[in-house]
Amino acid sequence: MDAPETPERSFPEGYGILDPDVLKSLSGLELLRGWSDGSLPSAPIAHTLGFHLAEVEEGRALFVGRPHWGLYNPIGSVHGGYAATLLDSCMSCAVHSTLPAGTGYTTAEIKVNFVRAISADSGEIRAEGKLIHPGRRLATSEGRITDAQGRLLAHGTATCFVFPL
Amino acid sequence: MDAPETPERSFPEGYGILDPDVLKSLSGLELLRGWSDGSLPSAPIAHTLGFHLAEVEEGRALFVGRPHWGLYNPIGSVHGGYAATLLDSCMSCAVHSTLPAGTGYTTAEIKVNFVRAISADSGEIRAEGKLIHPGRRLATSEGRITDAQGRLLAHGTATCFVFPL
Amino acid sequence: MDAPETPERSFPEGYGILDPDVLKSLSGLELLRGWSDGSLPSAPIAHTLGFHLAEVEEGRALFVGRPHWGLYNPIGSVHGGYAATLLDSCMSCAVHSTLPAGTGYTTAEIKVNFVRAISADSGEIRAEGKLIHPGRRLATSEGRITDAQGRLLAHGTATCFVFPL
Amino acid sequence: MDAPETPERSFPEGYGILDPDVLKSLSGLELLRGWSDGSLPSAPIAHTLGFHLAEVEEGRALFVGRPHWGLYNPIGSVHGGYAATLLDSCMSCAVHSTLPAGTGYTTAEIKVNFVRAISADSGEIRAEGKLIHPGRRLATSEGRITDAQGRLLAHGTATCFVFPL
Repeated sequence: MDAPETPERSFPEGYGILDPDVLKSLSGLELLRGWSDGSLPSAPIAHTLGFHLAEVEEGRALFVGRPHWGLYNPIGSVHGGYAATLLDSCMSCAVHSTLPAGTGYTTAEIKVNFVRAISADSGEIRAEGKLIHPGRRLATSEGRITDAQGRLLAHGTATCFVFPL
Repeated sequence: MDAPETPERSFPEGYGILDPDVLKSLSGLELLRGWSDGSLPSAPIAHTLGFHLAEVEEGRALFVGRPHWGLYNPIGSVHGGYAATLLDSCMSCAVHSTLPAGTGYTTAEIKVNFVRAISADSGEIRAEGKLIHPGRRLATSEGRITDAQGRLLAHGTATCFVFPL
Repeated sequence: MDAPETPERSFPEGYGILDPDVLKSLSGLELLRGWSDGSLPSAPIAHTLGFHLAEVEEGRALFVGRPHWGLYNPIGSVHGGYAATLLDSCMSCAVHSTLPAGTGYTTAEIKVNFVRAISADSGEIRAEGKLIHPGRRLATSEGRITDAQGRLLAHGTATCFVFPL
Repeated sequence: MDAPETPERSFPEGYGILDPDVLKSLSGLELLRGWSDGSLPSAPIAHTLGFHLAEVEEGRALFVGRPHWGLYNPIGSVHGGYAATLLDSCMSCAVHSTLPAGTGYTTAEIKVNFVRAISADSGEIRAEGKLIHPGRRLATSEGRITDAQGRLLAHGTATCFVFPL
């Protein structure tokens, strides 16, 4: 067998990866507002899974999505990975929104509780992340996902490591 | 604006949702072997994200995948949700593989540590889940993701709630 | 060496273990109020570590404590196990406070973030637990510990399994 | 009421807090061996709760303890905080054992699953921590507690932040 090749790089319009120099030059809030208003390319995974950053302010980020059939597990509900992805996004961005230009972060860990099954009937779901602790090196945040009726579907916490770029 | 409609149900060939009667009639290991050998429809999300169940035995499940550009975040690496999805899959299936016919489960929570960035250059990655505690009502498991060079990328634990169908 | 013996059972006045029949006959809130007002024996570990249940209502429990030198690790701060114990207490009791008589629970897992060191100078610290999701079988809660100045010291979440006694 | 005073500092023989200069001058393994062989003062909380560091090597630490009545909750089993404290200890020390002199760490978070009740009848229990990922800034570890019969009682993971002193 030939060595497997790296998959070819291509993105749908409006989605992509930021230039590292742009990343360095903007504060977290400036970046997130760029994703939210479409002036910067959004996350390719957001296209694949079907969600987008709807609102952002310092210490808070809200993603919305509409679960589709391509997210199901074979047991008949949306795979838990969808909720985990949305929570990872909103909790990480809640931290990111507080960082000045020249500061990066990485999400060290997330913890997710699944409290209600998600399905294509859940309607538009909202994943809201909020900063808990704005540490100089370690910051923490929490997130909750609710369905179109406001019922809690999943919740979680995250720990991010913050560092100079 | 009109009320948004539930997305139409359709799946790629070989992917889909199992009939609840089939689900009830098979043990966890029988089901998982059916997904692994292709005799039962696989998880639609596995098609969307690009991974599959490669090996399964009682108390252990191995998924393999090859990260593609559609999984990226805009910061330049694969979104943490991809690792979370693979870990959720392998840890839940490690528990599922131990359940007799007529027994269901739901994943109550997962905890994921991200220890190295995943990229399209990671090559084929492996997510292996193993049972820790086979409780009558609550079962726990752990999982690890490694890249093609065997380096650890992420690890986690899961708690599943087990119940009669 | 002789086989080690089971330690002799004895408790300080006001502390002890409840009769299982009493446990069964009271609702969670009745029990917790009994611990809070001193009409029922409090947790022996609360005496050992130095904390008590100060307030309780449906879906919320507040413990207060004053860290002493017997809680230190050798590195010069209070051991993280103290915060974990207080969070386990307040988060579990937040769930317990919602359960009717004849219903038991067990804490399946806790997750704790330590955000500031605790010391004997922290003064009176408060650990407040709040219900997140009141599931029929699985309930979740969160907790936060603050020092005498209101600064966040630690926070966490818990998953409890609820069952008929 | 007068303002409550800071509790007076005093420790049982063989227990105490290390001089910061000593802390800086020793590697993690040297420190832990000093606690294990009694040449350095042990953690005051280890006296209060009744456990000690029995074995240590690079990437692994084993604590043993014997649960006593002072660790009970009023529901009739040892409080989960005891297992959390032992896991915090063994998981943190597994990381600490890998650090060179002049390097400190703090435990950012722990996650604990309680899988069997602990009681005074559990006999001598063992809490073994093992390094998972030795990161330059973030290191992770796991731990398991077993009773005298080798049955699993609790397990967990930890994330530590490593920094120059």
